[in-house]
Amino acid sequence: MMVVAALGGNALLRRGEALTAENQRENAAKAAAALALIARAGHDLVITHGNGPQVGLLALQGLAYKADEIYPLDVMGAETEGMIGYLIEQELENALNHERTVATLLTQVRVDPDDPAFQNPTKFVGPVYDKAEADKMADRHGWAVAQDGEHWRRVVPSPVPQEIPDLKVLRQLLVHGTIVICAGGGGIPVVAKPDGSLTGIEAVIDKDAASALLAEALGADALLLLTDVEGVYRDFGTDNASLIKNLKPDEAAKLDLPAGSMGPKMAAARRFAASRVGRFAGIGKLDDAFDLLEGDAGTRIVASSSTS
Amino acid sequence: MMVVAALGGNALLRRGEALTAENQRENAAKAAAALALIARAGHDLVITHGNGPQVGLLALQGLAYKADEIYPLDVMGAETEGMIGYLIEQELENALNHERTVATLLTQVRVDPDDPAFQNPTKFVGPVYDKAEADKMADRHGWAVAQDGEHWRRVVPSPVPQEIPDLKVLRQLLVHGTIVICAGGGGIPVVAKPDGSLTGIEAVIDKDAASALLAEALGADALLLLTDVEGVYRDFGTDNASLIKNLKPDEAAKLDLPAGSMGPKMAAARRFAASRVGRFAGIGKLDDAFDLLEGDAGTRIVASSSTS
Repeated sequence: MMVVAALGGNALLRRGEALTAENQRENAAKAAAALALIARAGHDLVITHGNGPQVGLLALQGLAYKADEIYPLDVMGAETEGMIGYLIEQELENALNHERTVATLLTQVRVDPDDPAFQNPTKFVGPVYDKAEADKMADRHGWAVAQDGEHWRRVVPSPVPQEIPDLKVLRQLLVHGTIVICAGGGGIPVVAKPDGSLTGIEAVIDKDAASALLAEALGADALLLLTDVEGVYRDFGTDNASLIKNLKPDEAAKLDLPAGSMGPKMAAARRFAASRVGRFAGIGKLDDAFDLLEGDAGTRIVASSSTS
Repeated sequence: MMVVAALGGNALLRRGEALTAENQRENAAKAAAALALIARAGHDLVITHGNGPQVGLLALQGLAYKADEIYPLDVMGAETEGMIGYLIEQELENALNHERTVATLLTQVRVDPDDPAFQNPTKFVGPVYDKAEADKMADRHGWAVAQDGEHWRRVVPSPVPQEIPDLKVLRQLLVHGTIVICAGGGGIPVVAKPDGSLTGIEAVIDKDAASALLAEALGADALLLLTDVEGVYRDFGTDNASLIKNLKPDEAAKLDLPAGSMGPKMAAARRFAASRVGRFAGIGKLDDAFDLLEGDAGTRIVASSSTS
C-alpha cells in the first residue's frame, strides 16, 4: 500500500514546549517510532510535516539580528524543510536500523499568485502572544495577527496548493522502496512567472492541503493526518461527545468542526477520500499511526460504502 | 561523463556582499547559468556547495534572539542545505527550462568522533571582524576565533569526512538522469554511536573534502572545484606568477599553496585524481565551469601522463 503520513505540529513540538533543538529531536524520535511500524510492514511511505512554529521562530531570529536582512517566507520554508527533515530522517533511519533507505527531498509547491489568501492571511506561524504583545509586534514588524484559541499569533497567507513540480523526482525514489520525507511545511511556496519559470512567494501552505494534493497525485492508497487528538468527535465539547470511527466524505461535509485545525484536516481528508473509491484518509493520534492505517484507531474517511 | 561540481562560497556570496536573500538568489542564478552548460551537454551532474557564511549568520541570529535556544551546528547545517539548495535548484530548473529534473537531497556525512579536528577548530564560519570585535565575541559566546587574511572570524571543528550514508539514495536519482544538489556545506556532520545509530555533532565539514569523497564513491569522472580565481598559479603573488594548466597529483603535492582556501582545494583535487587513472579534478572560476570541464580554462589535476 502507498501511504502518505502528514505529521502535525506536535510531531516536533508538544503543546507548551520551547522550540529547542533538543525538544524537536525528542519528538522526532517519537514520531519515528510510530512511523517505523508502518515502514516495517513493507508499505511505501511518504512523510510530510508542518513548520508553523519553526518558520515563525526563524523570522523572529532574523528580526532580532538585523531587520533589513530578514529572509522571505519561501527561503525560510526551505530552511525548515532542511532542519525538520533532517531530524525526522535521522531518527527514522535509526528506528529502522538502516534497513530501509530514507531520503529528505526539498519540495516546491506551486500556488496561484491571484489566490485570495494573499489578501487575507490566516495561517498561524511562530510563538503565541497575549493581545497587547501581539498588537505591539504587528505594529513594529508590519505583521498581521489573529486570535488562536486563548492566545494571539502572527498570521501569513495560506494559498491553495495547485501543483507539485517535484513529483517526478519523488517517484524516482519511491520506485526503489525509499521512504521519502517531502513537502515539509506544506512545501516551499512558488508561483509561475509568465515565461514559465518559478519563483518563491511570501506564504505558508497548509501542510494537510499539500499532503492531500501529493497523495492524490502520487496515487496513494491512504492519507494519514496525524495530530494529538484521538480523531473526529460528534458533539465535541459536550457530554455526548463520541469518536466517529467511519465517515463518508459527504457526511463529513455536514459536521461542524473548529476552523483552526480540524477544519482544514477534514477538508484535506474529504478531498482525498472523494477522489477515488477505496482509498481512504485517517485522522488520529501520531502515536496510533499504525492502528489508524489498520482501522483500529481514529477516524476513517472513505467513499466506499463497504467499510462504513 | 559523471561530473561532481563543488561551488565555493562565492557561488552564493561575492566578497564583501551582505548575506541577504536577494544577493544569494542573484549569485545562485549566475551559478545556475554556468552549470546549465554542463547539464545541457548531457552529463550526469552532482552539485555540492559551501555554507560557511550562512551557518555563521544563523548562529548569530540565534544568539541575538535568545542565547539558550541556539541550535547545534548539525541542525544549522541542515537548515542551510535547505536554503541554499532551494535557491540553486530553482535557478537551475529555470535556466534549464525544466528540461531536466533537479533534486535537492539532504545529506548526512559521517565523521570520526575521535578526529583531532575536534580539539583544533580551523573552519571559518560567519562574518569577518577586526581583532577587538573577534575577541569580544569569543569571550561572550565561548567561540574559537582565528585570523582569516586581514580579518578575524569564528572557527569551528572541521573533521575529515569518512562516509556518505545517503549514497544509495543519490544513485537512485542519478540513474534517472536527475541532477542532484547534495552534501551542501560539506554535509550534515554525524557520528555513529556504539549501537550503530547516527547522531549529529558540532562541526562543519570542508565541502571540497566531502565533494572529493562523494565523487570517488560515486565513480565520477570529473571533480570541479569552482571558486573565484582562474586556477592554480606557480609563484603566486610574484611578477613571475603563471597559471598552471596541467598538474599530476605528485607534482601538486610539492606546490606551496595558501592553507586557507587553495590548500584544501588542492588536497581534495589530488585525492580524487590519484584515486583512478583517467579521472581528473579541475580548479577554476565558477563562470568557466564548462570550459574547465573541457580543458579550456583553469587548472587540471590528472594522474594519467597522456594529458600533461
